Amino acid sequence: MKDVPHAQAYTVPAVHAHPLDPLSPVELERACGIVKANRPTQRLFIKSCQLREPPKAELVPYLNAERAGTPLPPPARQADVLFFDLADRSLTESIINLDTGSETSEVVEGHHAAHSKDEIMEAREQLFKDPTFLETVAKLNLPPVDVVVAPWPVGADNTSPQPRRIAWILYCRGPSNHPDSNQYAFPLPPVIFWNVWDKRVDSVEWCYTGGEGDAMVHKPLTGKSVIEGMQPGEYLPELNGLPRRELKPLHVTQPQGVSFSVNGNLLEWQKWRFRIGFNAREGPVLHDVTYDGRRVFYRLSLSEMHVPYGDPRPPLHLKQVFDFGDVGLGRAANSLENGCDCLGSMRYFSWADVNSAGRAFTAKNVVCCHEQDNGILWKHTNSPTGRATVVRQRLLVLQTIITVGNYDYIFAWQFDQAGGIHLETRATGILSTSPIDMGKTSPYGTVVSPGVLGTSHQHFISVRIDPSIDGDANTITQDDVVADPWGPENPHGVGFRVSSTPIAQSGWADAAPDQNRVFKIQNRSVINPITMTPVGYKLVPLPSQMRLSQPDAMITSRAPFTQHHVWVTSYKDGELYAAGKYTNQSNGKAGGLETMVARKDNTLDTDVVLWHTFALTHIPRIEDFPVMPVETHTVSLKPNNFFTSNPALDVPLSTQAFNKSTLAECSGCPAKL
Amino acid sequence: MKDVPHAQAYTVPAVHAHPLDPLSPVELERACGIVKANRPTQRLFIKSCQLREPPKAELVPYLNAERAGTPLPPPARQADVLFFDLADRSLTESIINLDTGSETSEVVEGHHAAHSKDEIMEAREQLFKDPTFLETVAKLNLPPVDVVVAPWPVGADNTSPQPRRIAWILYCRGPSNHPDSNQYAFPLPPVIFWNVWDKRVDSVEWCYTGGEGDAMVHKPLTGKSVIEGMQPGEYLPELNGLPRRELKPLHVTQPQGVSFSVNGNLLEWQKWRFRIGFNAREGPVLHDVTYDGRRVFYRLSLSEMHVPYGDPRPPLHLKQVFDFGDVGLGRAANSLENGCDCLGSMRYFSWADVNSAGRAFTAKNVVCCHEQDNGILWKHTNSPTGRATVVRQRLLVLQTIITVGNYDYIFAWQFDQAGGIHLETRATGILSTSPIDMGKTSPYGTVVSPGVLGTSHQHFISVRIDPSIDGDANTITQDDVVADPWGPENPHGVGFRVSSTPIAQSGWADAAPDQNRVFKIQNRSVINPITMTPVGYKLVPLPSQMRLSQPDAMITSRAPFTQHHVWVTSYKDGELYAAGKYTNQSNGKAGGLETMVARKDNTLDTDVVLWHTFALTHIPRIEDFPVMPVETHTVSLKPNNFFTSNPALDVPLSTQAFNKSTLAECSGCPAKL
Repeated sequence: MKDVPHAQAYTVPAVHAHPLDPLSPVELERACGIVKANRPTQRLFIKSCQLREPPKAELVPYLNAERAGTPLPPPARQADVLFFDLADRSLTESIINLDTGSETSEVVEGHHAAHSKDEIMEAREQLFKDPTFLETVAKLNLPPVDVVVAPWPVGADNTSPQPRRIAWILYCRGPSNHPDSNQYAFPLPPVIFWNVWDKRVDSVEWCYTGGEGDAMVHKPLTGKSVIEGMQPGEYLPELNGLPRRELKPLHVTQPQGVSFSVNGNLLEWQKWRFRIGFNAREGPVLHDVTYDGRRVFYRLSLSEMHVPYGDPRPPLHLKQVFDFGDVGLGRAANSLENGCDCLGSMRYFSWADVNSAGRAFTAKNVVCCHEQDNGILWKHTNSPTGRATVVRQRLLVLQTIITVGNYDYIFAWQFDQAGGIHLETRATGILSTSPIDMGKTSPYGTVVSPGVLGTSHQHFISVRIDPSIDGDANTITQDDVVADPWGPENPHGVGFRVSSTPIAQSGWADAAPDQNRVFKIQNRSVINPITMTPVGYKLVPLPSQMRLSQPDAMITSRAPFTQHHVWVTSYKDGELYAAGKYTNQSNGKAGGLETMVARKDNTLDTDVVLWHTFALTHIPRIEDFPVMPVETHTVSLKPNNFFTSNPALDVPLSTQAFNKSTLAECSGCPAKL
Repeated sequence: MKDVPHAQAYTVPAVHAHPLDPLSPVELERACGIVKANRPTQRLFIKSCQLREPPKAELVPYLNAERAGTPLPPPARQADVLFFDLADRSLTESIINLDTGSETSEVVEGHHAAHSKDEIMEAREQLFKDPTFLETVAKLNLPPVDVVVAPWPVGADNTSPQPRRIAWILYCRGPSNHPDSNQYAFPLPPVIFWNVWDKRVDSVEWCYTGGEGDAMVHKPLTGKSVIEGMQPGEYLPELNGLPRRELKPLHVTQPQGVSFSVNGNLLEWQKWRFRIGFNAREGPVLHDVTYDGRRVFYRLSLSEMHVPYGDPRPPLHLKQVFDFGDVGLGRAANSLENGCDCLGSMRYFSWADVNSAGRAFTAKNVVCCHEQDNGILWKHTNSPTGRATVVRQRLLVLQTIITVGNYDYIFAWQFDQAGGIHLETRATGILSTSPIDMGKTSPYGTVVSPGVLGTSHQHFISVRIDPSIDGDANTITQDDVVADPWGPENPHGVGFRVSSTPIAQSGWADAAPDQNRVFKIQNRSVINPITMTPVGYKLVPLPSQMRLSQPDAMITSRAPFTQHHVWVTSYKDGELYAAGKYTNQSNGKAGGLETMVARKDNTLDTDVVLWHTFALTHIPRIEDFPVMPVETHTVSLKPNNFFTSNPALDVPLSTQAFNKSTLAECSGCPAKL
C-alpha cells in the first residue's frame, strides 16, 4: 500500500457510534468522495466500500475497557474501498482513514473483483442489444415468450484461454410470459460469454443435451423450437392453481414485549451480549460475544460459500461460483417482510451500501431479530415422588436470507439459554437446470421436468470462528472416543475413554463421527474448579462429504478449503476469507486457508481461529422442483466444562400461567382433558 | 403355543373401534380375566397385557378396503398377556382371542420379563426392611438424610454366577432432606443385588472410587461419612435460588382452531392420514401412513433403546439397560401437562394399562398432538423482477416424554407439508453418577460435582421403519456419490455421479457421510413418469459412533443391533424388537436383528423392513449437571422421486394478513420499520 496525497482536508471525525458499527451513509460517501477527489481526472467505478475493522491489538483493549465501564479512545475509523479505473481497467484497493481523511492504496494485480449490481445491470442492457446474442436467440425458434438471462460468475479450468468474468445462462419464460414465470423449467442450450470491458459477446458455447450413453454428443439444431415438449413448472400461486385450504392461522405473540434489548448494534438477551455488524462480503457478523460477562467469541462469521456442479461437460463444468466472494452475502441479502419471512415480534436491522458512483443507499431489513420457542430445554421427573420439573427453551434468532441467482439461503444465528450458539442454514430456491433430450436420463442429475436436468452439485460453507474463551490465548483439541482393550482394568470388555490431542500447529483435520470426534476450544490457563480440566467450548463438525473434484483439478486449487472439515490458523488481521479475498476467476493463487496454514504457525495457547467447512451434496429430487423445500443444517458451539453447572438452571419453570396453552378445537377433539 | 381350555364362554366380541386401536380397559380386564379364570388355583402376577396386532396378511386387505370405502369384516381381536405363576415362578405368554375367548399359551423358558411397577414397588418396600440393607447403610455414616434407592435392571457379563434381575443403586438426599432433592449429587458406594423371589439381598457390592492411576483400588471405609465434601446439586427452583427474571411470555395461539382432525385414533392433517397406536413396550406407534391417498409406511415405531456405560469397574460394568425391553417406552411415559410440556393448541391421547392384578388403569395424556411453526419451508426471489415468494412451514407433532430412572427422553414424530416424516429425540434428565475420591479425575467420565463422577456412556436407539411405498413390495438401495475419474468424459476433473446398490439379501450396512450415503426405499414396479426412476423415500442415517464394547464381550452379544447403523430384514409378523423380545438379563440368545438377518432372506421387491440404529456417545460436560439441557437428534424420511414435483407447492403463501407478526417492543427498538 502506498500513501495517497490528500486532495481535501478532513478535520472532523466521521460520525459513528462504535468502532464495530458498519459504515454510515455519511461515512460511505465520504470514503468514496476521498477516493474520487484524490483522482480528479480519472473515471472511477466503485465496486465496494465497507468498514475496515480495527486491528485486534487495538480493539481488544478497547472492548475490554468498554465492558469494564472505563472507556478508552476509539481506534481509527477506516473504510476499505475497491474500485475500477475505467480508463486503464485497473482495480485498486484503498484504505481511507475517516478520522484524518488520509488514503493508502494499492493496485490489485492478478485478481478480479466480485460482480456488482450496477455492472450486471449495465451488461444486461448491452447484451439484449448485441447482434451475436440476437442471432443466437433467433436460432432457438422459441415461441413468443421473453428470454431470461442469468448472470454467471464463470469459474476457471486449466485450459480456457483467458479470464472471463461474466457469462449469461439463457432461459425463457413459460407460455404465460408472466414476468415471474419460472424460467428454470425452460433452460436453453447456449451460454453467452460476455466481455465486460469491450461490451460485446466473447463467445457462444452450446451445452451438451445428451443423456446416459450419449452425454457428450452434440446434436445440430433441428429447426424446431428447442423447448418443444418442455412443460411449465410454476411456483407462483397465480400461475399454479389454488392453494390447499385447510391450514388455520398460527400466531406467536409476546403481550409483554420481547426479552431482548437493543442499543444501536449492541444486543443483550438472557446473559448474552454481543454486537451485530454487517458488510457487503460477509453479511451479518457477530462481535465480542460474552455470556454473563465472560468472553466467549471475538468474532463469528460466514466466510465463504462455494457451489461446484458435477456435470463435467463444457461449458457447464465452469459452474463453480463462490457466492460470498463472487457476489457477496451482504449484497445478496433480501429485504425481509414482516409476517412473511418472520413470525412473531420482530426487530429489523438495515444496512447502508454504495453504488458504482459512490452514492449510499439503504438495504432495508437485512437482518431480523426475534425470540422463538424451541420446545423443552430440560425436564426431569423424580421417580420417588413423581414430581416433574420442566423448562422450555427460548432462542434468540438473527436471520438473514439471500438470493444468489437461482438459489436462496436462509442463515440464522441462534443463541440459547444454556450457553450454546448455533448457525442454522437452510438451502431453498430453485435448482440450476440445463436442457436434456426428451426421454433421456443422465448420470449428472435428475430429470425434474420434461427435458430439464436438475444438475447434481455441492454447496460448501465455511464458518469462521474466532474464539476468545476467557481471553485470546486458546488451544484447539481433537477429541476422539476410543475403546479400552481387554485387560485387568477392562475385565468385561465394556470400557472406553476420551483420547484428546491438542493441535499444536496450524493445519486441517476431518470430522469422524464413527469416533465421536469433537473439536474443543480450550483456555488451558483457566481450570474449571470442579472438573479440574481447562474451560472450553466444543464444535461437533458436520461430517459431510467433501469435494468430489479431482485433487489436481483447477477447481480444487481454487477452493482448497473444501477438502477438509476443520482448519486451525493463528490469528492475523484481515484473514477472513476461506478461499481468499479475490475469488472471481481465481486460479489457485488467491490465498485462503491452504496458504494460511502453510505458515505452520504455533497454535498452542495463542490467538487461534477455527474454521469449519460443511457441505450439502445435492442430488436433486423431483420434490426439489420447481422450488425446493428447505434442506437444513445446524452447526453448534456449546460450552464444555466452561461453567460450573448447567447454565440454564435458573431459567424459570414452564407453567401454564406463563405459557397459556389451550386445548385444540377440532373435529374429533374432546373439549376436556 | 398350546391351546388352553376355556373356563368361561365368551360370545360377545369385545368393544373396540378399529383393529389397530390399543386395548380398551374392558378388553384389558377381559383378557387378564380369561387368563386367571383358566388357572383358578394359581396365583398369577400379570406382567403386561397389550394388543397383539393382526397378521399383516389380514390387516393390509382390511386397511386397503377401509381406505377405499368398502370395508371388510375386521380381523380377530387378540391380546398378548405375560404373567408369572407365583408358585412355580414360571413366566407364561398367552394369546387371548377376545372375540371367542380362546387362549393359547406358552411357558417362556430361558428368558426374563421386563420390570414392572408393582414388582419394583413391592421390592422397594421389602428392601427398606431388609437387615443386610440396613447394616450396609449404617456403615456409610450418613448425616440425617433419607437414602434413595434407584431400581436397576442389571446387565449381564460372561462370569457372573446367576441372572440377577434387580439391583438397587444407592443415593441420599441433600442436606435439605427435601423429597425432591437431587439424589444424584450424592451417589453412595454400595450396590444391592436383590432376589425378587426370595425377597432378600443376594449380595452387596461396593463401587470402586479411585481416579486416574488408582481407578481399581478399593479403599476401606474410614468411619467418616461417605458423602463428606459432596455438595448439593439441586435443579428444583425452591432449592436453588431465584430464577432469572428477564424472560417475557411467548404465546402460540390458533384463533380459528387447529388444522388437524381426529376420529378416534385416526389423524388427518395436510394430506397425511394415519392411525396412532400405543403399547407398553413401544409407546406410540404410527400405522397405515398415507399421503394424499398413497401408501407410504405400514408401521413406524421406536424398537429399542440401549444405554451401556463405559466404566469397566465391577459392578457398574453391568449398567447396560434396555430401556424399552427392560422397562417399556409406553410404561415409562409421562402424563403431559398443558402449558408445561406442550405450548399452543393441544390434543392429548391417553392410554390404558393393567396392574399386576390384571386391573386396568388409565395413563393420562401420554401423547400430545399439536401444530408448530417451523420457519420457512421454501422461498425464492426472482431476480429479474425482485418478487419474493415465501411459504412458511407447519409441522404436526406427536410428542411423548418418558422417564427411565435418572434419564428423561422426549420423542416427537413430526409430519411436514412436503411429504417428510421426522423422528426427533431429545435426551435430558440427570446423569447417572457414582462416587469418586475428592480431588481425583477419571478416564471414565467427568467430575460434575465434588466427589461425583458423571460416567461416560452411549445411548443407542433403534427405529423400525416398515415401509409400504405404493404397496408392500419394496427394495432398499444403498446410494453413494462417487467422483468420476479423469478421462475424455471428465476433461476438467469436476464430474461425479450416484452409485446405487440394491440390498438383495437381509443384512446390515453402515452410514458413510463422507460418501453422502443415503438409503432409499423404492417400489421398483412404480416408475416416476418424469424422472423415469422408481418411486421412493430416502433415509439419511445419522452417522453416530457405534458400540465401543469389545466384539466378543457379553454386552455386545446382548445388543448386536448397536454394531451397525442400518439393518434390512424381510417382514415377519411379530418381529418388532431390535434386541429381541426378552432383553432383561439376556445372554446373547434373545434373538433380535442379528438373528433375523441370519436367515439371509431375499429383500428385493418384497415386504422389507428398514431398521436404523443411531447413538449418542455421551461424554458428560459439567453443563449437563445437575440436569441436562436437551441433546437433540433428528432422523428424517423424505420423498425421493415419489411425487412429480415439490408436494408443498400448494401450501398458501406466507402473508402478514395470515401471520399477524408485530414489531418488537423493547428498549432500543424503534417503533417503526
